[in-house]
Amino acid sequence: MSGHEERTSGATALLRTLHGSGVDVCFANPGTSEMHFVAALDGVPGMRAVLALFEGVATGAADGYARMAGRPAATLLHLGPGLGNGLANLHNARRAHTPVVAVVGDHALTHAPLDAPLQSDIAAIAGSVSGWVRHSASTADVGADAVAAAHRGQVATLVLPADVSWGSGGRVAPPAAVADRPVADPGTLRAAADALASGEPAVLLIGGDATRADGLAAANRVAAATGARLLAETFPARLERGAGVAPVGRLAYLGDAARHQIGAARHVVLVGTRSPVAFFGYPGKDGDLVPDGRTVHAVVDGTGAATAALEELADLLAPGTTAATAAAARPDMPTGELTVASASAVVGALLPEGAIVVDEAITSGLGLPDATAGAPRHDWLTLTGGAIGYGLPAATGAAVACPDRPVWCLQADGSAMYTISALWTHAREGLDVTTVVYHNSAYAILRMELAAVGATGGPVAAGLFDLGRPELDFTAIARGMGVPAVRATTADELADALRRAAAEPGPHLVEAMVPALV
Amino acid sequence: MSGHEERTSGATALLRTLHGSGVDVCFANPGTSEMHFVAALDGVPGMRAVLALFEGVATGAADGYARMAGRPAATLLHLGPGLGNGLANLHNARRAHTPVVAVVGDHALTHAPLDAPLQSDIAAIAGSVSGWVRHSASTADVGADAVAAAHRGQVATLVLPADVSWGSGGRVAPPAAVADRPVADPGTLRAAADALASGEPAVLLIGGDATRADGLAAANRVAAATGARLLAETFPARLERGAGVAPVGRLAYLGDAARHQIGAARHVVLVGTRSPVAFFGYPGKDGDLVPDGRTVHAVVDGTGAATAALEELADLLAPGTTAATAAAARPDMPTGELTVASASAVVGALLPEGAIVVDEAITSGLGLPDATAGAPRHDWLTLTGGAIGYGLPAATGAAVACPDRPVWCLQADGSAMYTISALWTHAREGLDVTTVVYHNSAYAILRMELAAVGATGGPVAAGLFDLGRPELDFTAIARGMGVPAVRATTADELADALRRAAAEPGPHLVEAMVPALV
Repeated sequence: MSGHEERTSGATALLRTLHGSGVDVCFANPGTSEMHFVAALDGVPGMRAVLALFEGVATGAADGYARMAGRPAATLLHLGPGLGNGLANLHNARRAHTPVVAVVGDHALTHAPLDAPLQSDIAAIAGSVSGWVRHSASTADVGADAVAAAHRGQVATLVLPADVSWGSGGRVAPPAAVADRPVADPGTLRAAADALASGEPAVLLIGGDATRADGLAAANRVAAATGARLLAETFPARLERGAGVAPVGRLAYLGDAARHQIGAARHVVLVGTRSPVAFFGYPGKDGDLVPDGRTVHAVVDGTGAATAALEELADLLAPGTTAATAAAARPDMPTGELTVASASAVVGALLPEGAIVVDEAITSGLGLPDATAGAPRHDWLTLTGGAIGYGLPAATGAAVACPDRPVWCLQADGSAMYTISALWTHAREGLDVTTVVYHNSAYAILRMELAAVGATGGPVAAGLFDLGRPELDFTAIARGMGVPAVRATTADELADALRRAAAEPGPHLVEAMVPALV
Repeated sequence: MSGHEERTSGATALLRTLHGSGVDVCFANPGTSEMHFVAALDGVPGMRAVLALFEGVATGAADGYARMAGRPAATLLHLGPGLGNGLANLHNARRAHTPVVAVVGDHALTHAPLDAPLQSDIAAIAGSVSGWVRHSASTADVGADAVAAAHRGQVATLVLPADVSWGSGGRVAPPAAVADRPVADPGTLRAAADALASGEPAVLLIGGDATRADGLAAANRVAAATGARLLAETFPARLERGAGVAPVGRLAYLGDAARHQIGAARHVVLVGTRSPVAFFGYPGKDGDLVPDGRTVHAVVDGTGAATAALEELADLLAPGTTAATAAAARPDMPTGELTVASASAVVGALLPEGAIVVDEAITSGLGLPDATAGAPRHDWLTLTGGAIGYGLPAATGAAVACPDRPVWCLQADGSAMYTISALWTHAREGLDVTTVVYHNSAYAILRMELAAVGATGGPVAAGLFDLGRPELDFTAIARGMGVPAVRATTADELADALRRAAAEPGPHLVEAMVPALV
């Protein structure tokens, strides 16, 4: 861009500003009100437009992209209903502290008062998932709005009226500096260090940017030097792990198990996460997982400079030490019956170097963390917000962000069906995503949860967890969306299928026929 | 129920109250916070639970159900993300004035303050589509809340905390009378009658309950006696039509065409609808479709007693007359090339008596109204709110409501993909739904809209309307969800496939390979 101020359409100003601010992918599912935005894409060749057939794919892809790229993607959604369709995966992005620029097209400002059929309160819907919402009401300001959205560091929703988009007089805004992560308060950090050094039992619970190699190394040094129990939050946005990386266990999903992990501690030190709570409330159980009487040291939350805080703690508490790292180790390759355990072992035996694992395997993934702990170094993305249907879309975005790394999407069957059309985008973009669908024909997690809440259902209730009437055929569904697919009924077949997928570029799907855990 | 007050769990009180109020189907996609609701279903055998694999299927089914049954179904959704997934079809229901009882499970009241991962502002999301929202905060009151929701006559969202559901002391509330539709103001009706009798050119635009046989008969009598031009709103919730029914044309979707239909009128009389506006704003075009200087007579809106108002007008303006009705007539059965025109003729030639047509054919449906105008009597459901992905779900609900009537779901390919898992529910419930997917490999409507907004895109823009890379195979996808499917590449094959589908109970899908209109 030359030194003089450039004036363009609002759409072009928005796109050029986003591009200048480091946003160069847009996951799109547009409609009429977004047509000028779409038309402007050809004039901003650095902006890659990736089409999704459903908005939840676009938003989940933006989440997966930013978790891996470290910078936001844009999404393009169509008014309130389009945002609604994308809401669940924006919810997950919000809980992952993922930056996303969610552009939501709106009716022209002149059209909005007419309450046309697609009119609804977009800002109200957006507010439920966004850290920042702006209704961009002037073409002259849309560039400034875009740069604000791009540097927000969270889900930022820009509502873009069609006439603001098609209007002239748009100004491309220069990029602003990305805000640094907030650092720990020195007093809180010092108190946490004292607690860890006290010899009293402590849990060091980490999350945010601390679940990458450097943060894990520092955390391991602190734990080794102090005897604190090191745990990562239950659902980290991005966990680096495998051979050569300092290891970490995770706080359990089930409240009783998590309470057991924390129970003996006198101190709970939080670095990059907040005080743990149960995923759901259960009759007669406390949702707060930290028992009364413990001292909680909230050093930094999930948006803060957690790795830096851990390195400071390590310098204080474990000077001169080096973190132990996970040794290279693979499970023996199983043969015969395909079970949750053997399927996990196959994954552990074959997971390639540099893989990005997107984990929405739910109950079928129970054995995966152990089976892959010594696999070659990889990243592990989890369902941060509990809104299922994130796996296939997040894999889309991760593969767009890291075209040179293999993505393994480990996906439960029930949750696969919320955003199944992501497979088409895998095929369209030729993404190196290998999807394993764990076909157990059940919402098995709900069978567990029914018991956990103390309820007893009869056949009607059981029927609502039964995905086997009729049986889904994911092989057929995947082929119907352009993804080569095979069904595996033994551990050997799963291994063969994964080997073949790894040997061939582009997307693949393997339907792993596993019995439900419960 | 005996005379004494029965106390139960909140969930049971809710379900029994709904059942007592005439709500006997629940389209469900539950999660942990809804487990007590699910468990209580076995104790309320009159409540049919229909499982959907995605919430947009559940809400669209509730819309289609109520349009045909004339009473609401319930939906069961899981917190904010589940509601988000269901939002688009609740938006359509809102625009159709469809009653829906949207039960949204929430965290336990005791759990909500902990801001657990799935916590979000459900009421804010619900407010965008609901005429009524209540956070049901007490087990003792949940029955009363349920009866209020059931008689609301619009999308009524009941947010149900898990502990309100599992608590004891729930009371079953007796049904209340369903509120009558508001009747026309006598002065307004008289003024409208005078305008229609004046001899000045007039348009009589009808909607709401007036697009059923009785309303259409009265409207036709008024139009015949006064010379007024009779039109139905562009997207009626339920239009009764075919041989023996008084016919009606519809206001055009494209603004220019609609302005042409209205242009010459001095008076616009609205009965069961509101003053027409363009679906979208376009540069340099007025969104209000009624030109300046016309007198608008708003007799009743879409929630009002429109048929009663038309019958009053007919009594005043056309006493003793009888409405002309559509003659039985079928297009000649085409052979050879499959096009939008020949596919429409095949549908017109074969549409069975008593069919329910769910129309989301978009550009591929252009010829359908003419081709079916003289087909045996049938109902026609349209995309009232413009949120695509309504067809397959609405067909689900219509088939549940009317098990003895054939449902024909005429479905564009692009919009099919938003809620494609509805096919699995078609199979699971053995619904007599015949789906025609018009496979034209494009968002063809957006090609039209790009031109209509005055934009010119290049290859990137064109790529975002191209669904042919890779080609979707709806036959494979449907089979993968348990629905028998065939592909038709000629008019003859389409006719054969529809005949075979009609001869066999249960769901079928025909993938009609049609060229895109644009």
